[in-house]
Amino acid sequence: MRESELIEKIDEALGSPRNASRKLRLGIGDDAALFRGRAGHEIVLTCDWFFEGTHFLREKHPPSSVGWKCLARAVSDIAAMGGIPRCFLLSLALPASHTGRWLDQFLGGLRRASRKFQCSLAGGDTTRRNEILINVTVIGEIQTGRAELRSGARPGDLVYVSGRLGEAELGLQLSKRSLQGTRPKDPGMKKHLYPEPRLALGQWLAKNQFASAMMDLSDGLSSDLPRLCAASGVGARLEAVKIPVARTSSHNPKNRAATLQLALHGGDDYELLFTVPGNRAKLLPRSFQGLLLTPIGIVIPDRKIVLVNDGGREHQLIPGGWDPFRAHR
Amino acid sequence: MRESELIEKIDEALGSPRNASRKLRLGIGDDAALFRGRAGHEIVLTCDWFFEGTHFLREKHPPSSVGWKCLARAVSDIAAMGGIPRCFLLSLALPASHTGRWLDQFLGGLRRASRKFQCSLAGGDTTRRNEILINVTVIGEIQTGRAELRSGARPGDLVYVSGRLGEAELGLQLSKRSLQGTRPKDPGMKKHLYPEPRLALGQWLAKNQFASAMMDLSDGLSSDLPRLCAASGVGARLEAVKIPVARTSSHNPKNRAATLQLALHGGDDYELLFTVPGNRAKLLPRSFQGLLLTPIGIVIPDRKIVLVNDGGREHQLIPGGWDPFRAHR
Repeated sequence: MRESELIEKIDEALGSPRNASRKLRLGIGDDAALFRGRAGHEIVLTCDWFFEGTHFLREKHPPSSVGWKCLARAVSDIAAMGGIPRCFLLSLALPASHTGRWLDQFLGGLRRASRKFQCSLAGGDTTRRNEILINVTVIGEIQTGRAELRSGARPGDLVYVSGRLGEAELGLQLSKRSLQGTRPKDPGMKKHLYPEPRLALGQWLAKNQFASAMMDLSDGLSSDLPRLCAASGVGARLEAVKIPVARTSSHNPKNRAATLQLALHGGDDYELLFTVPGNRAKLLPRSFQGLLLTPIGIVIPDRKIVLVNDGGREHQLIPGGWDPFRAHR
Repeated sequence: MRESELIEKIDEALGSPRNASRKLRLGIGDDAALFRGRAGHEIVLTCDWFFEGTHFLREKHPPSSVGWKCLARAVSDIAAMGGIPRCFLLSLALPASHTGRWLDQFLGGLRRASRKFQCSLAGGDTTRRNEILINVTVIGEIQTGRAELRSGARPGDLVYVSGRLGEAELGLQLSKRSLQGTRPKDPGMKKHLYPEPRLALGQWLAKNQFASAMMDLSDGLSSDLPRLCAASGVGARLEAVKIPVARTSSHNPKNRAATLQLALHGGDDYELLFTVPGNRAKLLPRSFQGLLLTPIGIVIPDRKIVLVNDGGREHQLIPGGWDPFRAHR
C-alpha cells in the first residue's frame, strides 16, 4: 500500500468536507486544513499521544477501541474546558502489516467516536513504523471568556467529581485477562475500552458558571487533583467515604478498600473534577443527565492534599497515578 | 525526572503566555490551550510526524537541528497555504536518558525556530519512550478565502518553484558522512539541518493572488508535483534544463545529471511549488527577497507528468521521492 492509498482509505472511512461541519472548509488532501471559527468564540486546542505498549496493547485491545479511545481522550480535554469539539487531526504511524483488517476496524471505531462527539476529521499525517503510534489534535470552540481553567479554585469551594472513579482501571485489569474480541459486559470494561468524555456536563457547567476550576481525570484523582490545586495555589481535604467508587458484580466481590484504591489512583476514567463555590453548590443537582455529581471534599488554603479516611484519621494523599517519567508501575 | 518537571523545563525554554501573542490567552499547564482568532480570518491547521530513524538520526543530527526542523517542516505547510503561523502544540516522547543535555539543545533549536517564525508554544503532550518521537501541530491564520490550495492549477498555467531544488538532499548525503557537532558550511548542509519555510513568499503570493495552486516541496518534485496535478485534475510538462539545481563547490564537482536527479527526487527542500496563469506570470519578478522564482514548465490537460530532457526528448516522470509506505530507499 502506498501512502496515498492509505490516505484515501482514511478519507473514505471518516468522511469528506461534504459531510463535515460547514465551518471546516477544506479537509484532507491539501497541505493544511481550513477552519472558520465562530464570532465571539475562542479556539480550544489540545493533543494527545496514544502509543501501543504505553496506552494500549496491540494483541489485547480491539482495534475499534483503539480508534474510539484515541479521539475520546483528546476530546475529554475539550470537555474539561467546557468546550465544543469541532474537528481533529490524526497522525498515524503503522506497520505495513496493519493497513488491512486492523486499519479498517480502527477506522470504524474512530468513525463512531467522530460521529458521537460531532468532531470531523480535518487532516493529519501518516507514516510507516514497526509500532502503532497515534497522535490526535482536537480543535474545539468556546464562547470567549467562558472556558473553565484549572486555576480558579478558592478555599471553601467544594470539590466535585462526575460519575464513579476507578471503573476504567477495573476494566483494564479485566482486559489484561481477556482475549481480543471479547465483548465488553462489565461497565468498567466498557469505560476502559470506549470511554465517553463528559462533553454535555462540561458545557453545561461552563455555560451556567458553576465551576470555579475544572479538569478531566485522565491519570487518576491522586495525580490530577494536585495539578488543579497547584494551578490554583490551594490544597484540598477529601473524605474517603464520599468518593464514588466502582460498583463490582456480586460474583466478583471486592472490598471497599480495594475499590477506594482504584478510585484514588486508577487512570483513564475521563470523568470531570471540578470545584464549586459554596453558594453555587446549593443550586447544583445531585446528577446531570443520569451522571452522578458528588462532592468529595473541600478546597483548603494549605497547599497539600489531605485524605480523611473512614475512621476520621487524616493523612496526606501521595500521587499514585500515571506518570510516564516515573518508574512504570 | 517527573513529567511535571519536564513540562516546566519546556515551559521555561519556550516562553509563557506573557511573551506569546496576546491572541494566545492560555498556554501550557491547563487541559487545553485557548486561542483567539482574528475577525475575517480562517484558522489553518497542520501536523507532522518527526521520528528518529525515519526523519532524523539520534547520533548524527544535532539536537538543535531536530528542535528547529520539527517546527520548520510543519510551519512550511502553513507557508504553502499562504498563511501566517500563530502557535503550535508539541507532542514529545523521550527516553529518560535524553531529558538533560539533549533536551536542552533540542529546546534551544526549537526556541530559535519559534522566534524566527513568530509561532508560540501553546501546549502539547509528553511521555516516555525508548525512541525519540515528535509530533508538531501548527495553528495559523489567513484572510478568509485567500488560502492557496493545491486544486486551482489550469492548463496553460506556468509551473514555478522557489529557490534551488535538491540542496537538502545533498546536505543529507554530507551529514551521513559527518559526525555530530560538525558546523554546517555547505548551503545544502544548512538547508538539511535548518530549513527555512518560505513564509514571506507564500504570504506575498497569496496576498497578491499570483498563484492558481500551491504546495510545499517536502517529499521531492517528482512526488509532490503529481499530488498538485491530481488535486487540480491536470498534468504538467517540465523542462529539465530550466530546473534550478544545487550549486556544488568547485572542489567537489558533480555533473548536471547527478544534481538534476537530486532536484527531481530529493526531499526536505521546503521550497514552494506553485502555478501561475500566463497573464499574471508576466508581472511576477524573477526573485523575491533574494529567492529565485523559476518557471520550470507548463500545466497541460493530460493527467501525466512529462519531463523534456536537455536533448528535447520527452519521457514520463516517475515519482522517486519519499513515500514511507513504499520500500525504503
